[in-house]
Amino acid sequence: MGKDLFSNVQEFLNKNNKRSIYIITDENVAKIHLKSLISFLSSFHVGVHVLEPSEKSKSLDVVEGIYGDLIENNYDRSTTILSLGGGVVGDISGFVASTYLRGVDYIQIPTTLLAQVDSSIGGKVGLDFGKYKNMIGSFYFPIANFIDVKLLNTLDKRELTSGLGEIIKYGIIKDYDFFKYVTTNISKIYDCDENILLNIVEKSVSIKSEVVNKDERDKGIRRILNFGHTIGHGIESLFGFNTYNHGEAVILGMMYETYISKEIGLIDDEYFNEIINTLINLVPSKPNIETRDDSLSQIVDIISHDKKNVNGNIVFVLPVRQGEVEVFDDIDIELIKSSLKGDWL
Amino acid sequence: MGKDLFSNVQEFLNKNNKRSIYIITDENVAKIHLKSLISFLSSFHVGVHVLEPSEKSKSLDVVEGIYGDLIENNYDRSTTILSLGGGVVGDISGFVASTYLRGVDYIQIPTTLLAQVDSSIGGKVGLDFGKYKNMIGSFYFPIANFIDVKLLNTLDKRELTSGLGEIIKYGIIKDYDFFKYVTTNISKIYDCDENILLNIVEKSVSIKSEVVNKDERDKGIRRILNFGHTIGHGIESLFGFNTYNHGEAVILGMMYETYISKEIGLIDDEYFNEIINTLINLVPSKPNIETRDDSLSQIVDIISHDKKNVNGNIVFVLPVRQGEVEVFDDIDIELIKSSLKGDWL
Repeated sequence: MGKDLFSNVQEFLNKNNKRSIYIITDENVAKIHLKSLISFLSSFHVGVHVLEPSEKSKSLDVVEGIYGDLIENNYDRSTTILSLGGGVVGDISGFVASTYLRGVDYIQIPTTLLAQVDSSIGGKVGLDFGKYKNMIGSFYFPIANFIDVKLLNTLDKRELTSGLGEIIKYGIIKDYDFFKYVTTNISKIYDCDENILLNIVEKSVSIKSEVVNKDERDKGIRRILNFGHTIGHGIESLFGFNTYNHGEAVILGMMYETYISKEIGLIDDEYFNEIINTLINLVPSKPNIETRDDSLSQIVDIISHDKKNVNGNIVFVLPVRQGEVEVFDDIDIELIKSSLKGDWL
Repeated sequence: MGKDLFSNVQEFLNKNNKRSIYIITDENVAKIHLKSLISFLSSFHVGVHVLEPSEKSKSLDVVEGIYGDLIENNYDRSTTILSLGGGVVGDISGFVASTYLRGVDYIQIPTTLLAQVDSSIGGKVGLDFGKYKNMIGSFYFPIANFIDVKLLNTLDKRELTSGLGEIIKYGIIKDYDFFKYVTTNISKIYDCDENILLNIVEKSVSIKSEVVNKDERDKGIRRILNFGHTIGHGIESLFGFNTYNHGEAVILGMMYETYISKEIGLIDDEYFNEIINTLINLVPSKPNIETRDDSLSQIVDIISHDKKNVNGNIVFVLPVRQGEVEVFDDIDIELIKSSLKGDWL
């Protein structure tokens, strides 16, 4: 974790006797960072695979194309896959690394705030299946993860928001003081103040790592990381992944789920308002779910297919007090719908 | 391990609170065993997916169809995938189990001798990519493996041979006495003598498990299991998987590789003749590789793409004395070709 880490990547590869590197990245990231990274890798055999920058790349078809490229060019088990990009690139790279020749090493260089604080931590790799997110995947850990906040300078505001959603989530589920620290420094984060960024990235990674280390396989406490994600994934799917990016969808999800929490009496009005007022300023507009007649049932249908569900019950993570959440699987469908309707906003 | 184990499967599922079972099998096996198995599972929610009985089923396309079926029918993380079939069914089931919703439990009921002594042991799951075998996959262990020698009664001679190839391999790589025991009982094995079968299945599983447990991730000693497989995979690929089944290809591979071993002076003529004379009786005919002009280079090309290769060198496992093999990566290409030419046979 730090600034200007490409030379550290080079050093790490040398120290670990890596010779053959296969970089997976996307068009946007390639334009900005690829040349610089490759200049540090002149002593290695380097292949590059550039993806279209879209959630749509997280498909078996795209992965099949990468397998073909690897096989045609004789990449063997000594290959190291290097992911240079955001969460989509990381997911694809990790899935390929976990399955090519039954597993090769991979390294992450996350280039978005969201990837740095969330998707690059915890070993989850996954692909989408049609409209269902992350249905295919596994748990596979990189041999190294280089988190370089300098790479965040070129992100636009919405991309920073996307990371902010998860960062605020860490505060709500685990650390109320961190929640306050983040919400009072929002403008400095958007200005890419490197020291503030380093602080919040470091704290976020430490909260996520702590939770993940207790529960690598996602059976117990790790589920609290899904606060905002039950409804968030539904919104992402319904609007086609593009209208709202992941973080924005999670921010909306946290709002709707906080409403559910208040309605069943888990939190008081004061804490409810504090969360909602913080979150509402981060999204460009609330989704007009209520204006579309069939949307409510559609979103409930998508949520019912969520892989986090157990024995057919929809699983929700809800705030119960400052810096604390609990897992519920008995939330009334009508309450979910009235939350989504959004009259209360 | 034993006979008539379907009731044990039922008991195991009950004891482990499994409710939702998804059986993957193929048309041939379904005809013989599916009804009987399902009659033991009446108290569970049971889905069935029947595959075409062919190595061609080991493709991403087939797996994609299974994912779709699982998703459409709301199978969640509490699902247990039950593989009923040979190695192809086991590989597909294991790959699906390792990747669906980032991993669900699975159980094996291997129905071929080959699957009982080899593919169901050791956690390797894999798919083919075009003509390249097992390029995609992972390491994923079943929660239970029911090895029922009664299921072998319906196998034809060639299917038994397929298992025999691997069984004889265990003798050559690890236990010369076992090699002798198997070769003196060949006809009883073909007669499906249940006690002999139990003995050799048990010994085979114990040899493979011992090797695998020392090296789950296939980096060291586990490689000795690949005796016969470097050239064997080449033969399988070249002849399209169908002319020679896996065991027959491995038997041929062991013959060619034993020739290489003798030629570079690792074993003497006596041991060479003992192995060759045993193996040659198990295959219907030697492949006419030498009659096809371009075949030699084709097979060497396929072998060069083998995922077992390291840093571009072809890796061979060769007998060095009775019950012992070693790993080599410096075998001369011309020697490989003259072995394959088969003048010496």
